Order: sequence, then structure tokens, then C-alpha cells
Amino acid sequence: MDGEDTHRQRKGAGRSITRRGTKGMIKKTKQAEPVLVPLVDAETKRTITEDNKKAKRPNLAPLPAIGTRAKRTRTITENDIVRFADVSGDHNPLHLDAAYAAQTLFGERVAHGMLTASMISALLGNDLPGPGTIYLGQTLKFLGAVHIGDTVTASVEVIAVRENKRLLTLRTDCINQDGAVVLTGEATVKYAKEAGAI
Amino acid sequence: MDGEDTHRQRKGAGRSITRRGTKGMIKKTKQAEPVLVPLVDAETKRTITEDNKKAKRPNLAPLPAIGTRAKRTRTITENDIVRFADVSGDHNPLHLDAAYAAQTLFGERVAHGMLTASMISALLGNDLPGPGTIYLGQTLKFLGAVHIGDTVTASVEVIAVRENKRLLTLRTDCINQDGAVVLTGEATVKYAKEAGAI
Repeated sequence: MDGEDTHRQRKGAGRSITRRGTKGMIKKTKQAEPVLVPLVDAETKRTITEDNKKAKRPNLAPLPAIGTRAKRTRTITENDIVRFADVSGDHNPLHLDAAYAAQTLFGERVAHGMLTASMISALLGNDLPGPGTIYLGQTLKFLGAVHIGDTVTASVEVIAVRENKRLLTLRTDCINQDGAVVLTGEATVKYAKEAGAI
Repeated sequence: MDGEDTHRQRKGAGRSITRRGTKGMIKKTKQAEPVLVPLVDAETKRTITEDNKKAKRPNLAPLPAIGTRAKRTRTITENDIVRFADVSGDHNPLHLDAAYAAQTLFGERVAHGMLTASMISALLGNDLPGPGTIYLGQTLKFLGAVHIGDTVTASVEVIAVRENKRLLTLRTDCINQDGAVVLTGEATVKYAKEAGAI
């Protein structure tokens, strides 16, 4: 952890990853999002960005409440693994070569951990919070192998909301058909959808 | 963090994620890996597993040293994004719909964060440490958007080695063609390759 902090400081990112992430986005922005540079008005002690937000972004969609959940289920096929290997460039024989995998402690081919993790991305981007989501961070703990034919249910649940920065923390889990947790972690997202937008 | 620990304990995984992950793997194992249950010999204060390891797994490939690095570079194409959407199920219009993306603060389509992250998986599984890698964990901080045509260099560097458990921690970064860090984090892997194996 110390090492990580040092690393972050060396890159000049400062304490807040959120601030840093959104800084990068501003460069591409035509209409900069005011909340991203939180200047403080010394008189009122309120951030100028808070005022800006109220003035310029009155129509943001409401944030989901703590406890809101969504899930998706899919059965992992050999074709999924082959396609994921192609698009990721991860051709580790543990994923692709049945004879090789049989000689490992897994006994059979294993789906890429990032393929399972991509189900979380799909949930966040499509379902909760859905379009308007900006993915800021994810922790992943791979707790068990996913094999061809396994049915994986990914679920996300809002566990923290920071209304003023429009940040959500979600618990993210994937379980297999036997109820074993194969992947767990947490996602951090910003939800910036305008009310009424698609 | 408290919530997460509670969650883990509820599932009966105990303190160590590593132990839990590899426990699951043992079920599939013909020859259980002795290092995973570190019983302590009260007489010698050495762990029995250490002795077992020496006796039964004399041929494990050496672990890479701290500071060892590897990298991969690729240019992200529209086709990559479409294929990643298909295999992940993440059809967020920010990735797929140019007109939609033009109206967001990004201004143009953005590659899935997990597509960039999958470059790290490819490095770990293919290059460093390479085949024999068991992916245990990954943290991801998405610091900037990757657009179609961006050239991303992913790099991994060994920053910690736990020889007795064969665990490595690697710093994992992705930068774009302008040198901006678009993704950073850390990977935890176990490297269990037998010396001489493929």
C-alpha cells in the first residue's frame, strides 16, 4: 500500500484518484464538467464547483440508492474463451489448450479471469447505473476457476453514494452454478447521465 | 473494507484470499500443493510445508526478481471494441455509438476499460511470469479514456516476491501514445510452473 501511494505521488496524481481520472477527461471535453476542478470560495467556504453544478447541470438523473442491485447470468462456452483470447491477446495455454490444462492443478481449461470480470463491466455500463456511467476503478479477487460450461451470475450492489461528486461504490461478485464465489471486488463509478438522456 | 472482510468471512474464506483461492484449486488437484496448508512444527519452528515443498516440488521454475519488467503495445481499433462488446456483453453506447458518444463529455467513442485491462492479463499470462501463472487479484484505476486509434502500451513490473508462497505482486500500467497513464493498478499472481514445463 505504501508502495502504491508513492507511485501515485510520483505520477503527480495527488491523493484523489477520482480527481485525477476526471482531469484526464476534461482535455477531451467540449463543455467541461464544473465539478471536476473544485476551487474553494474563501468567503463562503462552499466550493465554486458546487454552485456551478447547480447552475449548469440541473438535469442530472437521480443516483441509485444504497442497496440497489442488478445481476446477469451467462454460461461460459469454449467459443467465449477463444473470442476473449483473440481480442485480449491472452493466449495462455491454460485457457486454450485442453491437453496442457489437464496437466495443471486445474485439470481442465479455465476461462480468463478478465472474461468473468467483463460481466461486471457489462452490468455497470448497461444496467446499474447504466449508460452515463464512467468507470473509475475496480478491484478484482479471483477466488475460483471458471470452466467451460459453468454458469456464472455476476451481481452488483450499490454500497456507497457520494452525491456531490456523483460517485458510487458497488460491491461486485460473480458466483458459479454451485454458489461458489469465483470473483469478488468493488467498483467505483461516476454517474453523469443527464435526466431524459438515452 | 470492513464490509468486504465480513463478506469474505461469511463465505468461510478466512483471512487469506490466497489461501481461499488455492483451496478451491486443490479440489481439482491430483497432487495437492503442500505449501497451501502451512502447519507449523512446534519443535523446529519451521513450517512443515516448507519441508514438504523442498521434498515434493524441487523442480519449480525460479521466480522472477523484483524489478523484472515486460510490456506489450497495440493500437485499439473499432473492430477491437466491437469484438469486446460482443464477448463481454457490454453494449454501452459510449463504446459503440459515435453519435451518442459525441454528446458526452468524452466527445467520441471510448474503448471498454476492461479491454485495456485485458492487455495486462495477456502480459501476465504470456510474458511475465507467463504460462504457469495463476491470477489471484488485480486493482484497476481508470485514469483516462482510450479512443479508437490510440496506441496503448501495457507494462508490468515485479515489485514484491513472496518466495515461500510463490506469490508475486506486479505494478501494472497502461499508457497511451502521448505518455498519459490511462490505467494503473497492481496484480497479484501465483507462479507455479514446474521447471522444464512448457
